Amino acid sequence: MNVEVIDNLISKAEVLIEALPYMQAFSGKYFVIKYGGQAMVSDELTASVVADIVLLKHIGIKPVLVHGGGKEVSAMMEKLGKKPRFVSGLRVTDDETMEVAEMVLLGNVNSRIVNLLNRCGARAVGLSGADAGLFQAVRKAPVSPGASPGEAVDLGRVGEIIRIDTALIKILSESGYIPVVSPIGSGPSWESLNINADHAAGELAGALQAEKLIILTDVEGVYRQAQEGLKFISRITEKEIRGLVAEGQINGGMIPKVEACLKALNKGVGRTHIIDGRRAHALILEIFTDAGIGTMVTL
Amino acid sequence: MNVEVIDNLISKAEVLIEALPYMQAFSGKYFVIKYGGQAMVSDELTASVVADIVLLKHIGIKPVLVHGGGKEVSAMMEKLGKKPRFVSGLRVTDDETMEVAEMVLLGNVNSRIVNLLNRCGARAVGLSGADAGLFQAVRKAPVSPGASPGEAVDLGRVGEIIRIDTALIKILSESGYIPVVSPIGSGPSWESLNINADHAAGELAGALQAEKLIILTDVEGVYRQAQEGLKFISRITEKEIRGLVAEGQINGGMIPKVEACLKALNKGVGRTHIIDGRRAHALILEIFTDAGIGTMVTL
Amino acid sequence: MNVEVIDNLISKAEVLIEALPYMQAFSGKYFVIKYGGQAMVSDELTASVVADIVLLKHIGIKPVLVHGGGKEVSAMMEKLGKKPRFVSGLRVTDDETMEVAEMVLLGNVNSRIVNLLNRCGARAVGLSGADAGLFQAVRKAPVSPGASPGEAVDLGRVGEIIRIDTALIKILSESGYIPVVSPIGSGPSWESLNINADHAAGELAGALQAEKLIILTDVEGVYRQAQEGLKFISRITEKEIRGLVAEGQINGGMIPKVEACLKALNKGVGRTHIIDGRRAHALILEIFTDAGIGTMVTL
Amino acid sequence: MNVEVIDNLISKAEVLIEALPYMQAFSGKYFVIKYGGQAMVSDELTASVVADIVLLKHIGIKPVLVHGGGKEVSAMMEKLGKKPRFVSGLRVTDDETMEVAEMVLLGNVNSRIVNLLNRCGARAVGLSGADAGLFQAVRKAPVSPGASPGEAVDLGRVGEIIRIDTALIKILSESGYIPVVSPIGSGPSWESLNINADHAAGELAGALQAEKLIILTDVEGVYRQAQEGLKFISRITEKEIRGLVAEGQINGGMIPKVEACLKALNKGVGRTHIIDGRRAHALILEIFTDAGIGTMVTL
Amino acid sequence: MNVEVIDNLISKAEVLIEALPYMQAFSGKYFVIKYGGQAMVSDELTASVVADIVLLKHIGIKPVLVHGGGKEVSAMMEKLGKKPRFVSGLRVTDDETMEVAEMVLLGNVNSRIVNLLNRCGARAVGLSGADAGLFQAVRKAPVSPGASPGEAVDLGRVGEIIRIDTALIKILSESGYIPVVSPIGSGPSWESLNINADHAAGELAGALQAEKLIILTDVEGVYRQAQEGLKFISRITEKEIRGLVAEGQINGGMIPKVEACLKALNKGVGRTHIIDGRRAHALILEIFTDAGIGTMVTL
Amino acid sequence: MNVEVIDNLISKAEVLIEALPYMQAFSGKYFVIKYGGQAMVSDELTASVVADIVLLKHIGIKPVLVHGGGKEVSAMMEKLGKKPRFVSGLRVTDDETMEVAEMVLLGNVNSRIVNLLNRCGARAVGLSGADAGLFQAVRKAPVSPGASPGEAVDLGRVGEIIRIDTALIKILSESGYIPVVSPIGSGPSWESLNINADHAAGELAGALQAEKLIILTDVEGVYRQAQEGLKFISRITEKEIRGLVAEGQINGGMIPKVEACLKALNKGVGRTHIIDGRRAHALILEIFTDAGIGTMVTL
Repeated sequence: MNVEVIDNLISKAEVLIEALPYMQAFSGKYFVIKYGGQAMVSDELTASVVADIVLLKHIGIKPVLVHGGGKEVSAMMEKLGKKPRFVSGLRVTDDETMEVAEMVLLGNVNSRIVNLLNRCGARAVGLSGADAGLFQAVRKAPVSPGASPGEAVDLGRVGEIIRIDTALIKILSESGYIPVVSPIGSGPSWESLNINADHAAGELAGALQAEKLIILTDVEGVYRQAQEGLKFISRITEKEIRGLVAEGQINGGMIPKVEACLKALNKGVGRTHIIDGRRAHALILEIFTDAGIGTMVTL
Repeated sequence: MNVEVIDNLISKAEVLIEALPYMQAFSGKYFVIKYGGQAMVSDELTASVVADIVLLKHIGIKPVLVHGGGKEVSAMMEKLGKKPRFVSGLRVTDDETMEVAEMVLLGNVNSRIVNLLNRCGARAVGLSGADAGLFQAVRKAPVSPGASPGEAVDLGRVGEIIRIDTALIKILSESGYIPVVSPIGSGPSWESLNINADHAAGELAGALQAEKLIILTDVEGVYRQAQEGLKFISRITEKEIRGLVAEGQINGGMIPKVEACLKALNKGVGRTHIIDGRRAHALILEIFTDAGIGTMVTL
Repeated sequence: MNVEVIDNLISKAEVLIEALPYMQAFSGKYFVIKYGGQAMVSDELTASVVADIVLLKHIGIKPVLVHGGGKEVSAMMEKLGKKPRFVSGLRVTDDETMEVAEMVLLGNVNSRIVNLLNRCGARAVGLSGADAGLFQAVRKAPVSPGASPGEAVDLGRVGEIIRIDTALIKILSESGYIPVVSPIGSGPSWESLNINADHAAGELAGALQAEKLIILTDVEGVYRQAQEGLKFISRITEKEIRGLVAEGQINGGMIPKVEACLKALNKGVGRTHIIDGRRAHALILEIFTDAGIGTMVTL
Repeated sequence: MNVEVIDNLISKAEVLIEALPYMQAFSGKYFVIKYGGQAMVSDELTASVVADIVLLKHIGIKPVLVHGGGKEVSAMMEKLGKKPRFVSGLRVTDDETMEVAEMVLLGNVNSRIVNLLNRCGARAVGLSGADAGLFQAVRKAPVSPGASPGEAVDLGRVGEIIRIDTALIKILSESGYIPVVSPIGSGPSWESLNINADHAAGELAGALQAEKLIILTDVEGVYRQAQEGLKFISRITEKEIRGLVAEGQINGGMIPKVEACLKALNKGVGRTHIIDGRRAHALILEIFTDAGIGTMVTL
Repeated sequence: MNVEVIDNLISKAEVLIEALPYMQAFSGKYFVIKYGGQAMVSDELTASVVADIVLLKHIGIKPVLVHGGGKEVSAMMEKLGKKPRFVSGLRVTDDETMEVAEMVLLGNVNSRIVNLLNRCGARAVGLSGADAGLFQAVRKAPVSPGASPGEAVDLGRVGEIIRIDTALIKILSESGYIPVVSPIGSGPSWESLNINADHAAGELAGALQAEKLIILTDVEGVYRQAQEGLKFISRITEKEIRGLVAEGQINGGMIPKVEACLKALNKGVGRTHIIDGRRAHALILEIFTDAGIGTMVTL
Repeated sequence: MNVEVIDNLISKAEVLIEALPYMQAFSGKYFVIKYGGQAMVSDELTASVVADIVLLKHIGIKPVLVHGGGKEVSAMMEKLGKKPRFVSGLRVTDDETMEVAEMVLLGNVNSRIVNLLNRCGARAVGLSGADAGLFQAVRKAPVSPGASPGEAVDLGRVGEIIRIDTALIKILSESGYIPVVSPIGSGPSWESLNINADHAAGELAGALQAEKLIILTDVEGVYRQAQEGLKFISRITEKEIRGLVAEGQINGGMIPKVEACLKALNKGVGRTHIIDGRRAHALILEIFTDAGIGTMVTL
């Protein structure tokens, strides 16, 4: 081998050595990773996220994935001639919609992620939150889209998690598998309910007493409007979040993300991060650098 | 309590006591149960099958379900404006068809069975055969529908199992869960392949060294044409099967069923049965009576 | 099979299914069953009790038997030309009497029950409470039969349990055996002491934190004298028991039974029942019906 | 402390150190010890045997006791007005005799040994060979006492062991208990059968692949008539035994003892010894000296 | 065998039986034994100490050795032309001295003890307190040899234990090994530090919640000057120690010994003893007699 | 973060991802690494080797170190005024030399490596091959330095391994520790013997059925003299080695290295490598690149 090749190899080895303290610090810990549909834009990026997760698993971390898939569900509904309907950002989920959602989430988004992980040499297992009482849920109360409470809309089969049985996740994680969980819950009579994926990830991170909750999304993190223009926030507290939400600066799909982080933090999760899943190897950058690359949410 | 009530209770207790020797004989053994779409006709019957399975679990048997769902797949394809196509009874499975099949099998049929089992107090977990290398498969060779070999049709993403990694099934079964498996395999590059559900059940029974393979279907069992009319066969050997298949008396969907039984028997499975899933509590009748109610296939 | 046979089988299967929720509720729990000599009247009934116990074991309950045998001891004493003597219902137990009692309880009553259980396919193990410090006891204080305390009679080798070492019972139960325990304790210098079997069962249930204590006897349960005649009590509290004992309505051999129930309840046992062991399959009726058939004692 | 006391203590310590290589050699090994009724003559000697066994247990050996009790059974039969009857040294055992034998062996001899062991700080558990299929037996063929075969006498409930399930013994031994086993077997319909205690010990030693079978008896060991008078044999082979039995020099109760040794040796037991249980600490002398003190039987 | 030989054997057996209650009392308990260089004077005595320790291991005690070796270190330093220097009895330990100390302690004293134990049939493993964070230490503060604080001397690489990770000791002890530990600690940057061996033994006994700490030394135990001359103290309390230290009656190398005992007692160790390692089988005498032979230190 | 920083981080993440397949392939496997004194030249290089080993441990490999130290031993001998003597490259080892060797190897070289590993966050444990029968050895036969056999020189305490008890290594490795082993064996009477470190590593790799034996040395690997000058050999077979040794091209300290590789290969070790320990991160380069950087020895 010539010197240049060797030097290149040595600098690679140094990268591995640099990563060692992070590996040591996180070994054996649960990381719950929310991997949204939005973050699954290109095959290349998905491959990068998946490789990152397999790496985490291999160096002793226990990653658990929760995925979303709202866009995919809406697309399938339209293919089937059914119009999606939302109230205050929540999908109105009649029985037929629930059936489509479950099919798409479990039989398409979840299984695609599982296949990608397995192709990388992992042993991934797709789960529904309705498996074995994993996500036990109740139906959400009707929601008023506008000012007058009389207009409250029944959201149908939309649920909120009230109890998580982590036994299945733990058995699989400790046996070397990577669980990939669809955001579906079981209602009181074991009917499937539609759960917000960010919320599901936050609750699961709390129930597992995870070391980290990482929400991959399609923006860099949280921003606020400053005089000098839009400003990226690398660290934000609960109080600051409340302020920015009130001002409408945090809005739309970012709201359940910050809520999930706060929920997880309140249940004892060590760190929560909202990061840009479109960035190559975002997960590794976030974990193996002190600075991190997204927004860290703290209490 | 009056005497009549008591007498009734006593006769119920006697039934439990009668079942005891069967419980003792089968305790700790794997039973692979193929539960086809055809056998899922009515909600009531499905409830009966599901309750039977939970009972088996509870008395110490380890049931593992493999389900089918051909009709459901075809129905969804039609909804999506796509025409199902078959060659020699095998579904020609292009990528789009595979996507629909996976969605329907995993996200609909499987999750419905899981919910029903959980509602009965079980802890069921839905799995795809593509999870963690469970069903490792290769693509089937092209098939000639007619006489001339030139017409061989590429079946696309139709697979045959070449290796089963039972670790996941065993971990779940021994931890008290009931695995419910969709007939999907992973191809050489970890792409999903469509597997015949009867074959999948037969292979899985063999790999688990199951005590029994039970195929629930929508006929009473195997019949043959006798002089006095159609005659039910309660016990049939490999040789007799070969004869009846050659004569065309065993045909259509019954062929993969008898093939699965023979495959399982050749891999060391104790007993294989084809029984009528439309009969209430068919599984319990089959297991807890000496005679059994369907066709027993033997070598 | 003809329709009638099938229908009959189906109704049997339904009985099994009906029993499922009870199996689920009691799985893995200890049931301490006191099976008295009085309840061993006929071979047929004994066979029914034994079959019930084996069934409980098989469906996941951990039954532990404590047996009595006062009548058998007295009979053997008379054969040996020795007159049994009682003070306030307690056997005055000199060394020779203790020797006879131990022989009869351990070498006859216990071994008969063990053989019957094994014949039913169980793996039963006969134990003495003197094995490995199971029932650690002290001698009871002398008892005054009449009014004047001067007449106090030394009961000899009659003991009260002061400590139970459940390790042996737990090892055997968890290894799949059914322990059958004779009511003998070890005194301070490891001499055998005669223990009331009901008390022994109550204490053992407490020490095991059993789900149920079931005392099989030869009456239907507890009765009281009402205006309209003798009235069966299906549920009775500690306070009511105190009243009926004071009135003399609960007396004789029923007293240690209710005492054992109260003792067990006070130590955290879930439910205690006094039921009629002469009734076929009394144990199954009691456990697998909501109403139960005997008297339930509660705090 | 004065010098003399110290010197005495030091010489005691040296004894312990001398014993160390024997402790190391036998650690974790099974020793089956037959402790007959004959060897239980005095309380003092019994105490010495029992202390020896507890010592063996404590230094890492796994002792398993099998006891006899023929004299005690005969004595009780006579108390009950029943005359013992023997054919060729075997007890003719009708149902009533079996009942007495079981009572005496299990409820008296066994429980006495258990109490003595426990008093020494051991955790002993009394077992019947009928517990949990430990000694599975068949009835012995009728025996002709004299020359003419027509006179063959049915021995009744006398059994021969055909299978031993050592699971119970192993679970108890490995959990720190000392099993004490009565020579009772279960017949084909789980009825109790009377087993020769020497044979039972030999079979059990074989089934446990014991390191040693030690038969404690009330003579020094095996003798033969030599010119110079009766001569003690410290080591004897199978062939020599056959000769001495044929000459009638080994006879009576010594026959089942040498048979048990040969049976055990043929099943792989390391060493078998017939030693004088009347000698104080005979067991320790036998084990912790190279010479040994009784007769060693070899193939 | 002649009678005399037998009698001698019997009296030996009695010694073993006498030791039984002590074996029972100490089974499974940790004994930390400090075995100093002073006590290693003759090969014969060392052999006696080693045999005692192997015996303790064999009868179920878990001995852990901590050794010293000050004299050996000084001797090697002199061989290497370096003069040992002490302040208030503590070795001033520059880097070179530390290097010599580590070499001698680990590569000579420790390995010699390990070989001797192994020769006796044990499986001994030599450890440094610097292995795997066993003894985590900080440097001791400078010490003033005389009255004026200005003269404080930096002791260099002399450490005090601040944390003990007992995991390694426990894994080895429970796997049947005897750990032999050199009194070396790891400082804040994982550099080796010189730890007083008595202190190390006391701390280790505390961390292991040992049953006993036994310090073998080269005097009989603790003495005090009485009117009638020097008087041996067989039992001494913390308060009495404080007094004798103040009076200078306890001084020199005895001070760290009593300190180690008090430290251990305060951390919950059952008993602490300072005994004469020059006495043959001192350890066995101490453990297997009620009186003991050295000084017992109590709170 | 600016783009350049991010790009740099991404390229680091890619290195980790590149390493993933190697991590997956080697997970759970034993790697025996010989780390010689020669390779310990500079602190910086040693730090690099140590960091590499900790990384291997962390990603699931089980590294076991065997170290040498010939130069250090000779240096200490000279300090002590003793002249090292060699015959055919083997150290003539009288008792005094053995004592020095043991001190230096165990108390200096080994403990330095252990401290360095622990400083990197590992939990390393120093072992002697004389611990618990790890390296059981016999003395080497006398060696003739020259032509005439009459001159055979007794090598003294130089040993050859005849048996390895890997239990200790396995317990420690599986409990998360990194064993560091000094090349010392126990002779027939448990005296320490001097073992060639390369041979010890080869034997240990064989006994552990290691995946790899890696010998770090101070040359690039094996060379041969070609017409065009000295030529590095990246892969060499047993036959080629025999040739080069015969030609004297492989000589001196390289001989035991190739012998160790061949010995290990013959005992079933997967791969053996001789690599240049002076190269930064040589171990990682060797393991995480397909080409490798040293000489691979094959059968």
